[in-house]
Amino acid sequence: MNINLAVLSLDSPVFHTYAIAACLMILKLMLQPWMTVARMMKVKGGYRSPEDAKKTPLNPEPRAGQLDVDEYVDRSRRMNLNDLESIPGFLAAGFLFVLAGPPVVFAQIVIWTFVVARAAHFVAYVTAQVHDVRATCWTFSSLAVLTMVIYTLIKLL
Amino acid sequence: MNINLAVLSLDSPVFHTYAIAACLMILKLMLQPWMTVARMMKVKGGYRSPEDAKKTPLNPEPRAGQLDVDEYVDRSRRMNLNDLESIPGFLAAGFLFVLAGPPVVFAQIVIWTFVVARAAHFVAYVTAQVHDVRATCWTFSSLAVLTMVIYTLIKLL
Amino acid sequence: MNINLAVLSLDSPVFHTYAIAACLMILKLMLQPWMTVARMMKVKGGYRSPEDAKKTPLNPEPRAGQLDVDEYVDRSRRMNLNDLESIPGFLAAGFLFVLAGPPVVFAQIVIWTFVVARAAHFVAYVTAQVHDVRATCWTFSSLAVLTMVIYTLIKLL
Repeated sequence: MNINLAVLSLDSPVFHTYAIAACLMILKLMLQPWMTVARMMKVKGGYRSPEDAKKTPLNPEPRAGQLDVDEYVDRSRRMNLNDLESIPGFLAAGFLFVLAGPPVVFAQIVIWTFVVARAAHFVAYVTAQVHDVRATCWTFSSLAVLTMVIYTLIKLL
Repeated sequence: MNINLAVLSLDSPVFHTYAIAACLMILKLMLQPWMTVARMMKVKGGYRSPEDAKKTPLNPEPRAGQLDVDEYVDRSRRMNLNDLESIPGFLAAGFLFVLAGPPVVFAQIVIWTFVVARAAHFVAYVTAQVHDVRATCWTFSSLAVLTMVIYTLIKLL
Repeated sequence: MNINLAVLSLDSPVFHTYAIAACLMILKLMLQPWMTVARMMKVKGGYRSPEDAKKTPLNPEPRAGQLDVDEYVDRSRRMNLNDLESIPGFLAAGFLFVLAGPPVVFAQIVIWTFVVARAAHFVAYVTAQVHDVRATCWTFSSLAVLTMVIYTLIKLL
């Protein structure tokens, strides 16, 4: 196959779509820990390291149990782990997919499917929807990445 | 150092090797959660969120203990975590390594060492081989990435 | 916006800075598991898989409790997880940021803020400083990535 390096320009429609989606997904990836922090501050617990139970300006009134697992905090940690399982794969797959030169509309559908599915997954997870709803959102996001990888592999081989 | 942008073409042998290996590794990264899902469906347990124990079409007969850690499911989760610790580092290191313009045969050996070592690690982990076997596979994969990073750093400095 | 593909050359000051920082961060990402391995070898415990408690050349004297959580080992695992939450996001954000063509000095300040903050976070975590110190280091590193992403998004839109 042949590749036109112009695809790497931010003016190329496919790369432009990828770059915006990638920025949004990196924002999500980096902001989820802030939700964990906010929840830890709110319940003054759900900490993980022994030293976090010490008296400090951010923890002025230490109490027993601050290191126990707290479901409210742990939910945000699980959401973060789910991001780690999904987003770096999307970022790398999407970049190679752009280089493989897919048709613009096809690329936009696949990339935005991922972003929308992850946004829906976030809402389903944070509001504790039943497993089937969350699993459906996750499935769409996973299939979007698999589509990008398989398309790229076929172009490469 | 000087870089020839032609290395980013999918026609360049080094980039072509990297792109194929990267696609295979992203596939592995994205398919491991499907193994976790398949195992959760099989044992109807090993779930992580409280709402997953509710009665739904995918969980028609809720029972106590569905949220307990299940070794069969947890093995797949640990394999996933191990992928997260290894594959994103490979994807990023490999890309910078390609830009650093390594000799083709050297690059192919290092890149395929990583892929083969990860495949062997997968087999060792899923069949619960003793720790020393799994550790040996992991060591080869880790050294492959470290080789790429150190080569790139030397070229950069 | 317009992009000059020369920014992807390792001779371009911004890309050169990014590539060195990225190599250092990938090294950190790949070496943290070696600290976990070293700590597991030292305490002969903190293992995670049932088969790791079997008698092997690397585990010549199995004993009860080798699979229990060991704080000394677990600290290194938590540090690794924290790397996973921070470094892949930096690697991807930094690459898009380079393509967005930021002013050289601005880019260097943001990129090195991340690297220095992560190094300080490592020291704070490994020496078990109180939570506020570790949180401060983490905040700088997180803000550095957010700055890169928001700058890139603004350029893209």
